[in-house]
Amino acid sequence: MENELISTEQIEQLIDQKNVKEIRRLFEVVPSIDLAEACSDIEDTKKLVFIFKTVKSEYTAEFFTELNSDVKEELITLMSDSELADILESQFTDDLVDDLEELPANLVSRVLKNVPKERRATINRLLNYKENTAGSIMTTEFLCLVDSLTADEAIKIIRDRGKDKETVYTLFIIDKQRNLVGTLDLDDLIFAKGDEPIKEIMNKDFVTVHVDDDQEEVANVVKRYDLNAVAVVNKDNRLVGVVTVDDIVDVIEQEATEDVQALSHVTPLEDSYLETPSYKMAWKCIPWIIVLLILGTFTTMALDKIEKTAVFAIVPVLIAFVPTLMDTGGNSGGQTIALMIRGLATKEFEPRDFFKVISKEALTALIVSSAISVFAFLWFIMEQYTGIVTNSELMVGDTFPTIWNGLCWTSEFFMNAVKVAGTVALTLFAGSFISKIIAVCLPLGVAAIKKDPAIVAQPLLTTIVDVISLISYLGIASLLFTMFH
Amino acid sequence: MENELISTEQIEQLIDQKNVKEIRRLFEVVPSIDLAEACSDIEDTKKLVFIFKTVKSEYTAEFFTELNSDVKEELITLMSDSELADILESQFTDDLVDDLEELPANLVSRVLKNVPKERRATINRLLNYKENTAGSIMTTEFLCLVDSLTADEAIKIIRDRGKDKETVYTLFIIDKQRNLVGTLDLDDLIFAKGDEPIKEIMNKDFVTVHVDDDQEEVANVVKRYDLNAVAVVNKDNRLVGVVTVDDIVDVIEQEATEDVQALSHVTPLEDSYLETPSYKMAWKCIPWIIVLLILGTFTTMALDKIEKTAVFAIVPVLIAFVPTLMDTGGNSGGQTIALMIRGLATKEFEPRDFFKVISKEALTALIVSSAISVFAFLWFIMEQYTGIVTNSELMVGDTFPTIWNGLCWTSEFFMNAVKVAGTVALTLFAGSFISKIIAVCLPLGVAAIKKDPAIVAQPLLTTIVDVISLISYLGIASLLFTMFH
Repeated sequence: MENELISTEQIEQLIDQKNVKEIRRLFEVVPSIDLAEACSDIEDTKKLVFIFKTVKSEYTAEFFTELNSDVKEELITLMSDSELADILESQFTDDLVDDLEELPANLVSRVLKNVPKERRATINRLLNYKENTAGSIMTTEFLCLVDSLTADEAIKIIRDRGKDKETVYTLFIIDKQRNLVGTLDLDDLIFAKGDEPIKEIMNKDFVTVHVDDDQEEVANVVKRYDLNAVAVVNKDNRLVGVVTVDDIVDVIEQEATEDVQALSHVTPLEDSYLETPSYKMAWKCIPWIIVLLILGTFTTMALDKIEKTAVFAIVPVLIAFVPTLMDTGGNSGGQTIALMIRGLATKEFEPRDFFKVISKEALTALIVSSAISVFAFLWFIMEQYTGIVTNSELMVGDTFPTIWNGLCWTSEFFMNAVKVAGTVALTLFAGSFISKIIAVCLPLGVAAIKKDPAIVAQPLLTTIVDVISLISYLGIASLLFTMFH
Repeated sequence: MENELISTEQIEQLIDQKNVKEIRRLFEVVPSIDLAEACSDIEDTKKLVFIFKTVKSEYTAEFFTELNSDVKEELITLMSDSELADILESQFTDDLVDDLEELPANLVSRVLKNVPKERRATINRLLNYKENTAGSIMTTEFLCLVDSLTADEAIKIIRDRGKDKETVYTLFIIDKQRNLVGTLDLDDLIFAKGDEPIKEIMNKDFVTVHVDDDQEEVANVVKRYDLNAVAVVNKDNRLVGVVTVDDIVDVIEQEATEDVQALSHVTPLEDSYLETPSYKMAWKCIPWIIVLLILGTFTTMALDKIEKTAVFAIVPVLIAFVPTLMDTGGNSGGQTIALMIRGLATKEFEPRDFFKVISKEALTALIVSSAISVFAFLWFIMEQYTGIVTNSELMVGDTFPTIWNGLCWTSEFFMNAVKVAGTVALTLFAGSFISKIIAVCLPLGVAAIKKDPAIVAQPLLTTIVDVISLISYLGIASLLFTMFH
């Protein structure tokens, strides 16, 4: 089958023609998200009301969930109370709560007025969980079975009561005291003999998460144990909700995007890129650039002082290599920071694995720094010999001898080029090595005090490494140019 | 329930004591991955053979899959052919293929010798799919039903033949010509009346992926449509395999990690950080640093030339701001690159949305660049007034007047400070703005020609922006210092 594509124009036309039959057919054969995307672009939202009047609410509930938040908001104002109640009834509670979090207060109260009283209580409770915790992403529509049932009895209950649950692929088994004692995969239930007690076939090696756990924690559990759904318990160890794998897929992607954004100095966005207006976008970008600019003051100060020292006055060509020194140090440490951030995010290691990680990275740093400084040494001699940079203090009349103008390098030229390249290469070695070591310590240290390493570590690293590089540069230059004068 | 934790020492002791009963109990109540992690650290791999002799293969198959690849390799050499055959039989084919891809050739042939002939054909076929395609991650153990069955008949078939399938939560429905005509969720089948034809309850709005599609593509489909499993078809549109959501969770995380690594100039690792030896790690880091170093030559060259121009000779303090200029330009563009890379990876936009994205980003760039250059202007005047940087050409005797030493700024000092700060701030504005614009064009351009934008875009950006910043700096400085002399 070719996936049927639906365009905004096509669906708008069908609504204009009031083509009930074709609209109903589309809602049966086209996935809700594709329809929602096409409909979100229809400028006159009023037209969408026709869809909710025409199509059965079992098809429109998911469709409504997937619409853009602006469109949703407008629709709620446009619909009558009874139309609204219809949609709300067929929405899953966790989706509904997500919607409510984005609506203005007056619409929230209108929505809450239109759901039955018991459900309102659940919604209010869910709205109170802190953002990005297990509680905030869990659903309360799960199926709980007592452990005294047989397989056939369990299947009968699933048939009777499972239809409005978010998942029946994982069932949660409780004992008479309502303690969670196991989980049961639906397939194991299907394969079991009818009179087999579910106590015999349930998984006793299940894991749970706590209602206050961070969603990243929950994602790691679901991923590690390849679960379809994980039980969420409160502090009394009672089952209060369930997180399903489709929500986890979104969490993993969101957390990854946040890591990338934080590493690149963007305050993580709440919405997607295109949905975030430019002024808000700018606000996510400006603070970090300014923080980095202020931190950069240390670099400016160091460079200003160094520039005025004797050795830099005699050999001004050294200044031309400053950006290369800083970029290389930053890049080298940046590599390590990225590996640390992802290692911590995917729980490959934790702050307490510090010694394992640092000993591994020290060896890597040694190899990397040696390799690049050897290469850099040769490359920088080449840069001088080809006149890419010129030692103005060694001019022969108006020209500097290079490979192009036929003037020969005397031993003085050669020694000078070696000293310049040597100074830069040695500083590169030190900068790159120290940078990688600090790039291990900073994120692991920040994670150890339970802060987000992606946000804090990188800006600090750049400044520290810049300043260290500049001071080493001055030291090494003074040494080489005074010792071997 | 508290998750039972198991340590390496504990399990090693149980093996030494040959405590069959407790080992068997552990394999029933502790998740395989926890056991595999504890056992991977046992130094004498021979001891592990005892586990495979003691515990039923239905428990050890997954355990074996989760072991470290080194340990797996050693175990295969240690086991007899019949022991090996037992494990292989209970492993899912896609896991087995993953294992084979990491084994040396002689062990691969030994493993293949020990699987039944029909399965060997499947394995060989799977081994031939290109890495990171749908074919390479799919399983061939799925359940296919003909569309003429009733619900009860379907359930009977699932009970008879579903047990060794990787998933029965999504069933694939074919017609008599073996064309895929629908998918069926197990829960819908359970809720259906026994005599209802499955044709009536199956989803007709299903989507498929192609066997050569990139795994990232597959992940986007599964995520977008919240699927448990997606059908993989070949070029004749025949169903050849299935990718399940638990594999997708790994793909999403792996792709995110690769994005972070590529953005930080690390060639993506094949294994996890701790499993990659230092020399290999270094090899993933060195090439990019050297590429960046070579690209940096343009910056060095530009700075060397600029340093020798008249305006920089008169106002050497301008040199001290060069790192700030470059860092800020790089940071500003880096923010945008990160947003582009993730937007492309999560399919929020595509290269053909170029105009939508660039018009949005141009506005953001304008706001960000204005804000930071206004701030920078004031900050740089402060830096001069407090003596963080000193205009040596304006010394009064041996000292430069600052807020600390009581010497007053004359209007000449003030004008000079304004010109210096103005030059840097205007260059910052230009650098930051241009950087953000290029940071949209580069990744979208690279993606349009189907290359990985994360790898190519960032190094090019830094160099281009550095050189543009330096040239603008020279131009603006010449203008301000000659015009307002």
